[in-house]
Amino acid sequence: MCQLLAMNCNTPTDIMFSFTGFALRGGNTDEHKDGWGIAFFEGKGVRHFVDHQAAVDSPIAGLIKSYPIKSKNVIAHIRKATQGVVSLENCHPFVRECWGVYWVFAHNGDLKNFAPVLDAAYHTVGSTDSEWAFCYVMQEMRKHFGDSMPPLAEISRFLRQICSEIAAYGTFNMTLSNGEALFVHCSTNLHYIVRQYPFCEATLSDEDIAIDFAAVTTPQDKVALIATAPLTCNEHWTPFGAGEFKVFVDGDVLAAEAA
Amino acid sequence: MCQLLAMNCNTPTDIMFSFTGFALRGGNTDEHKDGWGIAFFEGKGVRHFVDHQAAVDSPIAGLIKSYPIKSKNVIAHIRKATQGVVSLENCHPFVRECWGVYWVFAHNGDLKNFAPVLDAAYHTVGSTDSEWAFCYVMQEMRKHFGDSMPPLAEISRFLRQICSEIAAYGTFNMTLSNGEALFVHCSTNLHYIVRQYPFCEATLSDEDIAIDFAAVTTPQDKVALIATAPLTCNEHWTPFGAGEFKVFVDGDVLAAEAA
Repeated sequence: MCQLLAMNCNTPTDIMFSFTGFALRGGNTDEHKDGWGIAFFEGKGVRHFVDHQAAVDSPIAGLIKSYPIKSKNVIAHIRKATQGVVSLENCHPFVRECWGVYWVFAHNGDLKNFAPVLDAAYHTVGSTDSEWAFCYVMQEMRKHFGDSMPPLAEISRFLRQICSEIAAYGTFNMTLSNGEALFVHCSTNLHYIVRQYPFCEATLSDEDIAIDFAAVTTPQDKVALIATAPLTCNEHWTPFGAGEFKVFVDGDVLAAEAA
Repeated sequence: MCQLLAMNCNTPTDIMFSFTGFALRGGNTDEHKDGWGIAFFEGKGVRHFVDHQAAVDSPIAGLIKSYPIKSKNVIAHIRKATQGVVSLENCHPFVRECWGVYWVFAHNGDLKNFAPVLDAAYHTVGSTDSEWAFCYVMQEMRKHFGDSMPPLAEISRFLRQICSEIAAYGTFNMTLSNGEALFVHCSTNLHYIVRQYPFCEATLSDEDIAIDFAAVTTPQDKVALIATAPLTCNEHWTPFGAGEFKVFVDGDVLAAEAA
């Protein structure tokens, strides 16, 4: 299985602190050493880094830990291969374009006997069930809404429904972003936290590193973090329920009726 | 205007030497400081790095210069903005998926009044004429060949024709790769070299750095490099003719009838 990390904020924020803890699980404090990846939205553009080395050994992960790339939407993944060989094309997150917008996707879990027909604009490059599910979601979303992007509430309703359908085939913990919203579905294991004023000090679970967020934020900042397992040991992370689908915008969880 | 660099080889090769000279043109020995990007195929996967900082100042460019990523197909670009603002989504190269394969594209030049309808699977995310041309090429190729990838010779014939059509709208120096072949069209200014046994020492034009390729290659290696301006001062680079289209596979130029 794999681990997920995602961030959604109201102001561009770097993820160095959280990624430092998360990357340790890629071959050091945990066994997820079959590659990793991270994608940052920056405006409409995406910086996309993937590597099939363990995150703890990767020079590119080293760069991410030390270079403050600021983003309002980030999706990261460390991989323990269950389906698909260890290779670059099987590293999450995956990126596709739809309606002139990039969509970024990562998945944790296994889908059994899930092979819907991909007969339109999106095909898999690698051999994972995850990329197949992503291409299927994009294909169906495009077929459902046609040639132009609908309002967020309609996208959210559609994604909530299709995630629940896919989850019938196995474990489907997933994060998806179009640079505006972060969509999250949980089958088994995801947690989130919204950091906001008054900010406190946080200490990583995976290494003895602490940060005083009050010193690096403004009172208006809001930062939502989503992770398979809580990344800090002195904050309260909320577990997702089984089958729960949430939409994060500007660092906030949208109410279920709005999302 | 911008500058292009591309590499096609028969064995995975790093591009650190050439990229070091090329990156200097991004804000130091030349004025191309409005972002840069590079994409490496690795198997079917792609490592894609873009940055809207000048290549000379970019920590990510620093990583590329020092971390030997080995690839058989590389496409790089440094940008001097002429159309489209300086932003991440306007940095080349651009990546799209077609037939379960990633396609990577970069362009140097300006297209005037070029705005064909994009009504199928590919839309622009940024605001450059270059990305528009790329999406158009992908759209038309997909429409022309349908749902599965044809043999290389057919793709080459199609691309040769569509490049010549697009070039009627302005300057269209472009590099395109699907990880197997590197397709190159020249309107005004491109040069190439094929390095093969016996390998010699080469010295960068933009900095006093030399490399003895004999020490880092085997006699079977073949490496084709394509660049806007020759990158070395003691090797013979062949200029492309105006309107010339070439296909590189395994470090060799395919004969025109085969391509």
